[in-house]
Amino acid sequence: MVVGEVAVETDVVIMGGGPGGYAAAIRLGQLGKSVVLIEKDKLGGVCLNRGCIPSKALIHAADRYHGLNDLGKMGIRLPQEGTTMDLGVWQDWKAGITSQLGQGIAHLCKENGVTVVKGQATFLSDDRIGVETDGDFETYKFEQAIIATGSRPFIPSFIKVDGEYILDSTSSLQLKEVPASLSIIGGGYIGIELGMAFAKLGTKVTIIEMDNRILPHVAENLVKEVTRNAKKLGINIKTSSRVEKASVVDGQVHLLVSSEEQGTEAVVSEKSLVTIGRIPNTEEIGLNRAGVTVGEKGHIAVDMECRTNVPHIFAIGDTTPGPALAHRASKQGIVAAEVIAGLPSAVDSPYVPYVIFSEPQIAGVGLSREEAEQQGYSVKVGKFPFSANGRALATNETEGFAEVIVDADSHILLGMHMVGADASNLIGEGVLALELAARVEDIALSMHPHPTLTEGWLEAAEAVLGHAIHIVNK
Amino acid sequence: MVVGEVAVETDVVIMGGGPGGYAAAIRLGQLGKSVVLIEKDKLGGVCLNRGCIPSKALIHAADRYHGLNDLGKMGIRLPQEGTTMDLGVWQDWKAGITSQLGQGIAHLCKENGVTVVKGQATFLSDDRIGVETDGDFETYKFEQAIIATGSRPFIPSFIKVDGEYILDSTSSLQLKEVPASLSIIGGGYIGIELGMAFAKLGTKVTIIEMDNRILPHVAENLVKEVTRNAKKLGINIKTSSRVEKASVVDGQVHLLVSSEEQGTEAVVSEKSLVTIGRIPNTEEIGLNRAGVTVGEKGHIAVDMECRTNVPHIFAIGDTTPGPALAHRASKQGIVAAEVIAGLPSAVDSPYVPYVIFSEPQIAGVGLSREEAEQQGYSVKVGKFPFSANGRALATNETEGFAEVIVDADSHILLGMHMVGADASNLIGEGVLALELAARVEDIALSMHPHPTLTEGWLEAAEAVLGHAIHIVNK
Repeated sequence: MVVGEVAVETDVVIMGGGPGGYAAAIRLGQLGKSVVLIEKDKLGGVCLNRGCIPSKALIHAADRYHGLNDLGKMGIRLPQEGTTMDLGVWQDWKAGITSQLGQGIAHLCKENGVTVVKGQATFLSDDRIGVETDGDFETYKFEQAIIATGSRPFIPSFIKVDGEYILDSTSSLQLKEVPASLSIIGGGYIGIELGMAFAKLGTKVTIIEMDNRILPHVAENLVKEVTRNAKKLGINIKTSSRVEKASVVDGQVHLLVSSEEQGTEAVVSEKSLVTIGRIPNTEEIGLNRAGVTVGEKGHIAVDMECRTNVPHIFAIGDTTPGPALAHRASKQGIVAAEVIAGLPSAVDSPYVPYVIFSEPQIAGVGLSREEAEQQGYSVKVGKFPFSANGRALATNETEGFAEVIVDADSHILLGMHMVGADASNLIGEGVLALELAARVEDIALSMHPHPTLTEGWLEAAEAVLGHAIHIVNK
Repeated sequence: MVVGEVAVETDVVIMGGGPGGYAAAIRLGQLGKSVVLIEKDKLGGVCLNRGCIPSKALIHAADRYHGLNDLGKMGIRLPQEGTTMDLGVWQDWKAGITSQLGQGIAHLCKENGVTVVKGQATFLSDDRIGVETDGDFETYKFEQAIIATGSRPFIPSFIKVDGEYILDSTSSLQLKEVPASLSIIGGGYIGIELGMAFAKLGTKVTIIEMDNRILPHVAENLVKEVTRNAKKLGINIKTSSRVEKASVVDGQVHLLVSSEEQGTEAVVSEKSLVTIGRIPNTEEIGLNRAGVTVGEKGHIAVDMECRTNVPHIFAIGDTTPGPALAHRASKQGIVAAEVIAGLPSAVDSPYVPYVIFSEPQIAGVGLSREEAEQQGYSVKVGKFPFSANGRALATNETEGFAEVIVDADSHILLGMHMVGADASNLIGEGVLALELAARVEDIALSMHPHPTLTEGWLEAAEAVLGHAIHIVNK
């Protein structure tokens, strides 16, 4: 193996083939650049192979399984016994989905002229990247590079994820059997999504959260319904609690949990899942050799064009400060690609929507009421409950509400948030509204179709103006 | 009974308590007007009691019932036998929903100071309306009136709807048992929605449509997937066919159906449903005594303020020319109310969205490609298939596509249409986009959350611009 003797020359090298990296690669290909996309594992990255997509497949199956309980009142009679969940079969279904999407990305890369290389990439200098593939080593000389190596679960040093008893989100999605009991360390969105899904499949779930409530990063009023449902699903929520120790004894996970109120107690379960947070994969890619500096928590600071401190090296997605969300990564990837190709492009919008596939779903974009008030806005808020929406009643999904937050002076929308069925799709209207700096009247005067859940936005907007039709305006 | 001796004086009388009438009444109440709302049957009208809401409750139950077939591949094992649909139980569920919504409207009317009167209303003159309630007669003197009497199914004179064998949409939603077979006269959206729902519940359905395809009012490319699914559900579709005769023989409905291709044949079924169209309820309300003129098909022409030819009498909803849709009625009701209260208000937008709860759903707003071309636009069209969307795959709903139609010169959006799961909610973004005269770049540059179906709009917009990420741009 001779390192770097003859380098392959290319316009752009991208490290990491997740939703940021492959989007950047495809756009660069569309813009006529030669691109090498290096991925050490599978195209699609964590999101496609071990995150968003598999977890949504689990949540969907769990919803359908648990939803069988609601069918009786609609007249659908199922035999009392004999319904089971075979997670092995589900694994095959999931594998089919991720494989189809992965092949799709490979095909799109090929059609757009992207060279995909499998291997572990490291900067050798500020214009060379080395790639190790099965003991072989290749060097690429680039004009520009994009760092898109993503993130991985943060695991505290005193916890050892073994993938069998103590799991991270990846291994929790590889289970072949529904565990009888599961403790979850961390009540953020991953913990809540997976915790509710397993609870729906019959697992006895305990969630341990250091903050005084679950989903601490989401506005409190949006979380109430989810907390209530978690309890209805039999989930034991321990807030203001800290895991001090995790050990496997006789095939069970023992967690030592301490809180001011309860003192110290043991939580024993068949499996345990650690979902405390994610850390960027920026340590082992030779950033120092490229001169790229990294912040305290391992993130790479970038400007609106996604440039690092080294102007021809870009960073996107979870390696940069901000929410670790696939759509942020894709957007940054496209912007970086366009900037590299000499086009005017920038990540110049503050609007990064969020979606949580809890029960019911939560989705939002823009400021929460609290954030808007903290920023000095005088705000008006309009809310409309799903329980007053005909479509919600006719589909037996009456939990939650739409919430519209408005600058009282200009009536420009500051935030739109929703808890309820299908919030993940309904937020599309909110994204566009905020991006266009729409006023609340724009929502209120647009004819929303009946009977749909979109009417929730209409009525919430009308409520801001003091004249919703389907709720009493106070 | 002394007719009209002492009239009750009120600012506004509204004839009809459907989604147009009650919305107008509530808004008038909010604006300080005294309002009498006259409804001969139940508040909420056809939409709530016999149309949109009950049909959506049936469609939802049918989806859930039929969806049981898809659970196996996700790992959910159900007993092979013993699943049944009890339409009697479903009737109770449905009744609970409509009654809850109806009570809600009554409460909202009360809270907004609206006087609700039950009875049959007739104009006595251009400032008086008489109301007959259980043989009693009351007269109301008004400053302004709103005609909101809605529409009813059109039944050809040679067909006799008996409610037992030959049904209209109302009686089809009152069945206590799933019929073994059902012929449907008319393949418009009501026929398709109900036909697919009954087919999912196990009914052998035949649809007879005069046009050469089902859903003839919807752009052809949006209908293909639905036609394919109808056939998969075992629905026998007879297009370019006309029902010549309908009779009940020995408890079976015999239809004589003729077509150029097939000649004349008999279609025999347990029940038959007539869904040919709807006609406005404008004959028996004394319009001539008020001086209100009516067009050829019974519709009342109105201006943008919903005024009839008699300036202080307004008409809204299905009594006016245009699509017979609840959200159009509500919008007109609110506008009429605001105009009466002296506010500047008008139905000044051409954007009336449509939603069809077929399998999969269809929804859209604005022009179809054909309409845009007919109007002289040079158009660009972008499409994105659900089969390339991660969320669609993870929820097993991969049929359909998003379609964005754009003026090639200005890039202003002309139409947004969708076939696919949840199109009814996803169209919210389209409604706002068209209402705001957004450009396709506004959709393409907005960060849509992953993994959601909203990404379909994003990618369709990118496709217009020639650079979608997740499909090959040709």
